[in-house]
This record gives sequence, C-alpha cells and structure tokens, in this order.
Amino acid sequence: MTEPAEQQNNPQLDPAQIAKKYVAEVKVQVERISTRIKVVGLIASQDKPSLAYARATQQKFDAIGIDYDLRNIERLDLENEILALNADPEVHGIFIYFPVFHNEQDSYLRNLVDYRKDIEAGSQYWTHKLYTNDRLAVPGDPLKKALLPCTPLAIIKILAETGICEPQDEHPLMGKTVTIFNRSEVIGRPLAVMLSNDGAKVYSFDINGPLLFSNAKPAEVDISRSEALATSDIVITGVPSKHFEKVRCDEILPGTVCLNFSSVPNFADDIASHTNIFIPKVGPMTVAMCMRNTVRLYKNFHGA
Amino acid sequence: MTEPAEQQNNPQLDPAQIAKKYVAEVKVQVERISTRIKVVGLIASQDKPSLAYARATQQKFDAIGIDYDLRNIERLDLENEILALNADPEVHGIFIYFPVFHNEQDSYLRNLVDYRKDIEAGSQYWTHKLYTNDRLAVPGDPLKKALLPCTPLAIIKILAETGICEPQDEHPLMGKTVTIFNRSEVIGRPLAVMLSNDGAKVYSFDINGPLLFSNAKPAEVDISRSEALATSDIVITGVPSKHFEKVRCDEILPGTVCLNFSSVPNFADDIASHTNIFIPKVGPMTVAMCMRNTVRLYKNFHGA
Repeated sequence: MTEPAEQQNNPQLDPAQIAKKYVAEVKVQVERISTRIKVVGLIASQDKPSLAYARATQQKFDAIGIDYDLRNIERLDLENEILALNADPEVHGIFIYFPVFHNEQDSYLRNLVDYRKDIEAGSQYWTHKLYTNDRLAVPGDPLKKALLPCTPLAIIKILAETGICEPQDEHPLMGKTVTIFNRSEVIGRPLAVMLSNDGAKVYSFDINGPLLFSNAKPAEVDISRSEALATSDIVITGVPSKHFEKVRCDEILPGTVCLNFSSVPNFADDIASHTNIFIPKVGPMTVAMCMRNTVRLYKNFHGA
Repeated sequence: MTEPAEQQNNPQLDPAQIAKKYVAEVKVQVERISTRIKVVGLIASQDKPSLAYARATQQKFDAIGIDYDLRNIERLDLENEILALNADPEVHGIFIYFPVFHNEQDSYLRNLVDYRKDIEAGSQYWTHKLYTNDRLAVPGDPLKKALLPCTPLAIIKILAETGICEPQDEHPLMGKTVTIFNRSEVIGRPLAVMLSNDGAKVYSFDINGPLLFSNAKPAEVDISRSEALATSDIVITGVPSKHFEKVRCDEILPGTVCLNFSSVPNFADDIASHTNIFIPKVGPMTVAMCMRNTVRLYKNFHGA
C-alpha cells in the first residue's frame, strides 16, 4: 500500500514542481528585457492567510526580476486605484486578489482593469476573444497573440503533465470526456471552451444544471452528475462551498484524473488512495501563468 | 378609511400614468426623425408571463413609431445573436430580457451589447461613466450626453412625482435619507450613486451588509436594517427572493415613500394602508426610459 504516498510524491502531480519549468522559461524572457517590468498587486483584506498568499506571490515575481508592488488598500478605494494604475505608464501589470465584494461588483472591478495590464486575463476583453476564437491581442497584428485566462491555462498545462493528453496531436484530448463542476466566467466557462477546443467532450455543471461543450461550442444536455462522472476520464472541481457533495471514488472510473481548484476540498478524502491521479490545487501554476501573461502583455503593449 | 383606496388610485403613484408623459415626449422626438428606428428584443424563455411582458414592450415601442423586432431564441444562441446585431447597421438598439443564465454569464452578455445600441444602459460602459461622473457619451463631444441605466432613472423620475423632491433645487434630495435593499450592478449600486448625487444620504444593503453613499461616494458604515429604516424618508426594495424579511409599517416613519422594483413583494401587505406613499412596481417607467435612451442613442451614434 505504498501507492498513495508515491502518487502524492510524484513531482509531475505537484503544481509547484510543474511551475518551476514555466517560471524558469519566463525568467529567461524577463532577463532579455532591459526595462524592469512593474506589476502592482492590490489586496483589500486583513485576512492573514490571504495576506500570506499575496506576499508569496510577491516573492515569486520578485525572484524572477519582475518588480511586484503589493498594496493593501480599503475595498472602497479599489475602483479609483485601478483607474489610477490604468493611467500610470510606469505600471505594466495589475493583479487583484478576489473575492472582494462577493457580488457582481467583483466582475465590475475585474473588467475595469485595462486589458493591456490584465495579467490574469480575466476581464471580458480576453474571455470574449477566447469565446469567439479570436487569437489576436489586437486586430490586424498577427505577431501579438491573445492572452488566455491564467487559471484555466494553468489547469490545461497541469493536465498535459499527467500523461492523459497526446501533446503532439492537434487535438490532444480527442476522445476524452471531462466533467467540470463550476461554470464561472473566470474559470469554469473558459476552461470548458479550452478543453473542448483540444478535442474533449466536456460536461459543465453549475447550480443551474449541465451544458455539454464540444469544439468550443455549448449545447443543452440532459445528463445527471452520476452519468457524467461514470464516463469521464478527467474530473475537475471548483465549487467554493462546503455544501457541495464531494466526488467519491465509487462515482468515477478507476484511474480518473481528478483536479480541484476550489479553496474547499471537493473530492472525498480517499480519492488519491485509489488508482486515480489527484491534483488537489493549482495555485503555483496559476502564478506561473500570470508571470507568462505579464511578459506577453509587456511585449505586446509596453515594449519598445 | 378611504385613504388607502385614494392612494392606490392616485395617478401620480401609478408608474403607468407617469410614463404617459415621458412616452408622449419621446413620441414627438421619434416623429422628427426621418429614419425608422429599429430595436431588436431578445427573449430566451418559454415562460408565458415573460413572453406576455415582452410582447407588451413590443407594442409600446411600436405605438410610438419605433420598429421593435421581438425574437424568441435559444439561450445558447444569445451570444452570437448579440454579436450579429452589434454588427448590423440596420439595428439601432438591443434589448435583452434578463435573467437568462441566472449567473455571471448574464453580466457577460449585458456587457457584450455594443454601448451604442445598449438602450437599457446596463453595460459597464455606461455604469462606469456614472461612477466616474463622466457626463459625456464619448470623449470630447459635449453635445452627446451619457446615458443613465433605465431602471434607476425610472425610479428617480417616479420619486420626483411623489412630491418628496425639490425639483428646482440643484440637489433635489438634500437632507433626505434613503434605504435601498439591493446593490446589484444594474440597479442598486447605480441608483445609490444617482440618489446621493441628488443630495440624499443613502444606506445601501445587500446580503454582505450596508454601505453609506453620500455625494456619489460609498463609505463603510455600521448600521442595522432597523436603524436605517427608522430614519429614512424613502425606502426602496429590490430583492428577488421570497426569503427577504418584508419591510413592515412598524419599522418605518409615517409618510415614508416606499417603492419596490423586485418581481417579489418586499413590503408587508398593509404598507399602503397607512400614511405611506407606496409604489409597488416601476416596469412601465423602465420601458419609457428605455425609449428615451433609444432616441438618445440614435441621435448620438446613428443619426446623420
């Protein structure tokens, strides 16, 4: 019974390990840029774990040579602060620690960030490009590629490390079935589109029911959670609620790739003690993808 | 005890009556425009009351000479339909019947409408102008005034008819206190900003607690529902939930102006049987303000 320990120690399944490769790549790119790139991180919280996470992000950016100015401000000052940062030519990127207001105002703030400084690529400018299959950052300039939202991108990159994809294939997830619990505009919906772009059949559940994404297009579907889970090669959870009914081993196929991006555990505790591949968090890879986006934004919009 | 009946029959308090004046004004403007203005209404529902409401809107637009093309489509086709309408030079305005997805995707769709065709003025382009006190529809052209979101505008106009405002005053609600239950990005927050722009002190409640708006700026405040209600001249409710604790007569001052814009009753049944002024819905005025916005958009962006 050493399998669980082996799996948990498998460096391929630890997003912090996977991130190292990407961070190293970004570091090389940063070193080639003569200007010191500056990102401002905005946190409106006194919650200690949140602050610790923010300081960890800061250290990771600083470590590769990106100036990361972490500011702790009042939530009601965020709107004006974002506008000031948008207008400040010394600032190349903006990162906001959500949730702040826990309502629609968070979407408002996310969309308020200038797309040229939106290193999370969570604003509607970028998700809209994904949904309409527009691969260019700005019209008419094929050298400037559009950004992808950082958490979905992090998840795609992690999945690639599990061996479930055919990385040489144009559609590396062709023939695979995925179930996602979360259809937020920032993670769940873009992720469903990206995975189905890669060839997967994606069942996307939220509290209003399921949709089926194929070839980046959604369709109405009548399927239960248990039916979807019983046919899935990959199960991804992102429900920030303790009331979510955790996914159990008896609901999924043996050897399923299981990934949770919620701050709350969404899989039963024994999920990794079977043959499944379990990725309990994606955080470090999200930060790595943000760094990547930062450099891409700099090159697209701020470089000489 | 004839007062309640009198109040309910008071034409000043019936939004359908108030709307007549505004609709007549818009009709005169429409008659002066040689092109036939075209609005497309998109409804993704088979719910009979929703469809009846949509057809009523259509008739109201048609009655003043605006071509209102009501289309019943699948919800998953909305995104592409909006993009097609944005690109169609024959279409001057777009109206979407929300809620559709009952999640963040509805905000996404709202923001997808081209601001030049957004007759509800519910997209972030317009609310952002309100929040930053930018009164111009486009930079540098003082002849083109910014739009205001239609339901908050409807509520402001209805309040003006109750006699509680000083219409000649630069700040017609100076010295007045308002409590609002709803801080959505489409109605509650813009309404709080607009009322406080007019001089009122506005307590804005949502499930995350209260904020105090003065001079269009929010501030943190520590006040209970009952404390806010006990000092308010105007109470406005917009909570689409049967679980909301209805506002009772014993919580408010005698003679309070009470207005509900939720589809669910948010005031106790006897609210109008006291000295209060009660406005149970705003729908017809919202449609009138949409018509007004339609003509303003046409003149700003589509006229010769």
